[in-house]
Amino acid sequence: MSGLSVFALGGLHEIGKNMYAVQYDDDIFLIDCGNKFPDESLLGIDLIIPDISFLIKNKEKVKGLIVTHGHEDHIGGIPFLLKEINVPVYATRFTIGLIELKLQDHKLLGTTELKEIKEDTQLDFGSVQVEFFKVIHSIPDCLGVVFNTPEGSVVHTGDFKFDLTPAIEEYSDIHKMAEIGKKGVLLLLSESTNAERPGLTPTERRVGEHVDEAFMKADGKVFLSTFASNVSRLQQAVDAAAKTGRKLALLGRTMVNVVEVAMERGYLNVPDGMLIDKRDINKLPPQQVAILCTGSQGEIMAALSRLSTGDFRDAEVLPGDTVILAAGPIPGNEKAVSRIVDNLYGLGAKVIYGSGSSSGMHVSGHGYQEDLKLMLTLMRPKYFIPIHGELRMLHHHRMLAESVGVQEGNTFILKNGDVLDIQDGEARQTKSVHAGNTYVDGLGVGETGEIVLRDRRQLSEDGILIIFLTMSKTDKKLATNPDIISRGFVFEKESTELLNNINVLVSQTVNEMTSSKRNEWGMIKHELKKVTGDYLYKQTRKKPMILPFIIEV
Amino acid sequence: MSGLSVFALGGLHEIGKNMYAVQYDDDIFLIDCGNKFPDESLLGIDLIIPDISFLIKNKEKVKGLIVTHGHEDHIGGIPFLLKEINVPVYATRFTIGLIELKLQDHKLLGTTELKEIKEDTQLDFGSVQVEFFKVIHSIPDCLGVVFNTPEGSVVHTGDFKFDLTPAIEEYSDIHKMAEIGKKGVLLLLSESTNAERPGLTPTERRVGEHVDEAFMKADGKVFLSTFASNVSRLQQAVDAAAKTGRKLALLGRTMVNVVEVAMERGYLNVPDGMLIDKRDINKLPPQQVAILCTGSQGEIMAALSRLSTGDFRDAEVLPGDTVILAAGPIPGNEKAVSRIVDNLYGLGAKVIYGSGSSSGMHVSGHGYQEDLKLMLTLMRPKYFIPIHGELRMLHHHRMLAESVGVQEGNTFILKNGDVLDIQDGEARQTKSVHAGNTYVDGLGVGETGEIVLRDRRQLSEDGILIIFLTMSKTDKKLATNPDIISRGFVFEKESTELLNNINVLVSQTVNEMTSSKRNEWGMIKHELKKVTGDYLYKQTRKKPMILPFIIEV
Repeated sequence: MSGLSVFALGGLHEIGKNMYAVQYDDDIFLIDCGNKFPDESLLGIDLIIPDISFLIKNKEKVKGLIVTHGHEDHIGGIPFLLKEINVPVYATRFTIGLIELKLQDHKLLGTTELKEIKEDTQLDFGSVQVEFFKVIHSIPDCLGVVFNTPEGSVVHTGDFKFDLTPAIEEYSDIHKMAEIGKKGVLLLLSESTNAERPGLTPTERRVGEHVDEAFMKADGKVFLSTFASNVSRLQQAVDAAAKTGRKLALLGRTMVNVVEVAMERGYLNVPDGMLIDKRDINKLPPQQVAILCTGSQGEIMAALSRLSTGDFRDAEVLPGDTVILAAGPIPGNEKAVSRIVDNLYGLGAKVIYGSGSSSGMHVSGHGYQEDLKLMLTLMRPKYFIPIHGELRMLHHHRMLAESVGVQEGNTFILKNGDVLDIQDGEARQTKSVHAGNTYVDGLGVGETGEIVLRDRRQLSEDGILIIFLTMSKTDKKLATNPDIISRGFVFEKESTELLNNINVLVSQTVNEMTSSKRNEWGMIKHELKKVTGDYLYKQTRKKPMILPFIIEV
Repeated sequence: MSGLSVFALGGLHEIGKNMYAVQYDDDIFLIDCGNKFPDESLLGIDLIIPDISFLIKNKEKVKGLIVTHGHEDHIGGIPFLLKEINVPVYATRFTIGLIELKLQDHKLLGTTELKEIKEDTQLDFGSVQVEFFKVIHSIPDCLGVVFNTPEGSVVHTGDFKFDLTPAIEEYSDIHKMAEIGKKGVLLLLSESTNAERPGLTPTERRVGEHVDEAFMKADGKVFLSTFASNVSRLQQAVDAAAKTGRKLALLGRTMVNVVEVAMERGYLNVPDGMLIDKRDINKLPPQQVAILCTGSQGEIMAALSRLSTGDFRDAEVLPGDTVILAAGPIPGNEKAVSRIVDNLYGLGAKVIYGSGSSSGMHVSGHGYQEDLKLMLTLMRPKYFIPIHGELRMLHHHRMLAESVGVQEGNTFILKNGDVLDIQDGEARQTKSVHAGNTYVDGLGVGETGEIVLRDRRQLSEDGILIIFLTMSKTDKKLATNPDIISRGFVFEKESTELLNNINVLVSQTVNEMTSSKRNEWGMIKHELKKVTGDYLYKQTRKKPMILPFIIEV
């Protein structure tokens, strides 16, 4: 590629694993490297990260990774990238704090070049200069990025909303955005998460008022669960606790770690003496305790889930306690969250929950349609790529762009890997680079493929049936009765008749085949799979995996 | 039990498998017998129905099954009940039509006593008289039930909302409800699905207006997907098609069957000559075709899903076509529905979707808080059991009841199986009868237990590793090298090193054990599971099921 090219290795047609690339001649600049959590069809998979084989092939061209903010879908893939390509990582102070936690876990802290940037940092990479602008979102210290190239400037918004009355002292730098737009933007990449939602994102400050109110009304302990990285939400809880004379305990490893990063670096202000150890929760009267905990998404191993089932050693939800879920469920997590709410009701707690608007305890960090239109209006780009969203969101975002003046035909709805080339002011979608999903499965990265997953799917639905044959080497006949073992199919002890029938069927089949001299082992196995498979389907409408084994004696 | 008792065998702390029982002395009356679809943790399970072992033990007491309406969560368990207890089934004309479709599939049509009831039917069972009242919901011909017992009357609402301007000529009989309430209601059982939602359910007529508008704006074909049983929604689509001069095709087996039942029985009016065969869709100009199809919940094998992937033989979604999803996603189905919407965008269709309020194409069939309060006010019961809902919904419903005058302490939040006894006007929660989930798995009913499911879970996450040992009978030593086979764990061809290491480890372990005379087969198997399990976890962080087999030669 020569000239200017832009593409994504993750984040298009999906929410998650964001990774975008701006290339000018032989310099590739990466923006974000996130992960994504697998859906229920990817059995046993822990994590999905972008397939970076294209970058590995072009290792020497990659000049750096710029990270817009510290959410998992923007930083979760970084350790896996760095193990393959050790590039400098540019990020703000708070984001670096969160990246460091990750690098520690992966033992990469010593070998990584972390470079702190600020909103007014300017980076010079020869033909490309990079500058930044402040955006706000549901985590501190977020940036948008501007690549000034000889062809024109490319702007990446990061994740953003416009909130003119945020809860902590961080403001969108609308003036700088206006200035960038005025100078002229060749291409805008803007996030599309809430492109389907009409209106403007409600302000964070409303949440604070509701949190205060709930703390004041509460008689017993107050539990508040949210994303640990949502420091402004945490600050609101800290403030409410201070106003109502409560000490504060933290539950969940992520909460403890992130609060430490946020306090150390000055993003979260907790009054001296307010934090208590979780083991001291029960030493105080309940109305003097507030607890921040992880697990607002219903994650089964996180603090809130374990509290809801009475399975947490140091703290207990008791009748009269208040539990606030101060985070909306991410699509797909609704049922897990509901289960927790039900359990908490079962414990006698007062539960405040619901998708933001109904409980008032959450507002989205992603701009709604009017926010997105404001960004498009400020930047007034010639070309536009909606990013960070599923296909329907990208389409909605395209319509929004056209409604505020982006010319029809100048919006490009790309897939991961699709390359947009811009030469002499003209954009064209040309070739594709390799992009895809890399599965992290236990310690294995990229080793679990479609065959293993297909096997897991079959095993998960219908289980396995193992047929064991001992065949005589001399006369090629069954030496003993076949053994039949099943797991995850039917319960052996309650299915003796079915298993006996299979036993008979297997013996018959093998005897027929050997007497008709069709006694090659491969043929026998093949025939057994077919015959028992058909029989079992007819009897049970199930299709277990059938594994015949032959031992020669 | 003597006197009056009320309990549920399904429907409490859950949405689905509704089944309630009113017992007076030795007469048990059942209300509904539904099914529920399994969540992702119940691998391979097709359906959940109520555990009816209590009823089987008390067969001779069961006097009949009254069915309030024809939704799956109220009728889906009927064939399984009738196979065990052949009781008369009372239902309205349309509901009987849907039950008959089910009985046909299960070859039970000839042996079942189906008794048609109307809103003014009165049934006399000796000490108990049963009458009905008309309610409206998202399916025609729904009833509430009143049991007049010597102890007082027990009212079951069925599923309902109050819509004063419904789309077809079916109205809630508010006058009769008022009369029942005036005579005095001892105990009310009322559904709780939307107890969390403030306000009054929006009217169906709004949907009609939006459907009309979408049909008028459409240039190409119009696809509309909804529940086949939502006849009033179908009628609105038929009317819109008539107004815009479109012929109508039906896609999906359920759609074809239910439309036939609804037309035959006079619930759906389709102009003569409007229906066309699906094979004729492509013979007409696209702007003269409308298509009703199943699959609004994202069901993978239903028409809409297959249309969205271009995998439907007789019809195709083309650029410029309009696809309307006229049903809100049931909790848990959001992701599947979104996937379809994305695919439809990918085909270039105009897609109208979203949770009711945003698209205007759906309103709920279940009453919101104000509807529920109106029912409670009309009935003014002494005692109240909120039914048909998860725990948080039951709690919200309790609060609503108290807000309109049900005395504190007179609302009973029960679990399935909990029995409420009422004697001399006093209600007490006493014992419990056996209640639970029966799993339908292929053709097996109630045969798949926790052990099989646990095995499936392990297999689904981490797969299986089979270790094969051939041991010599004479010296109790390994006769050949062990065989190691894996499925769903790691891909054998790409993991030769790992599998070789296991091979060595297995041989070593067995040799050590046999030379130290710890060579009992059971002990060897146990040790192999432990040693290889530990090794694999350390190497891969996975815990496959390990099955060692020993063959003596």
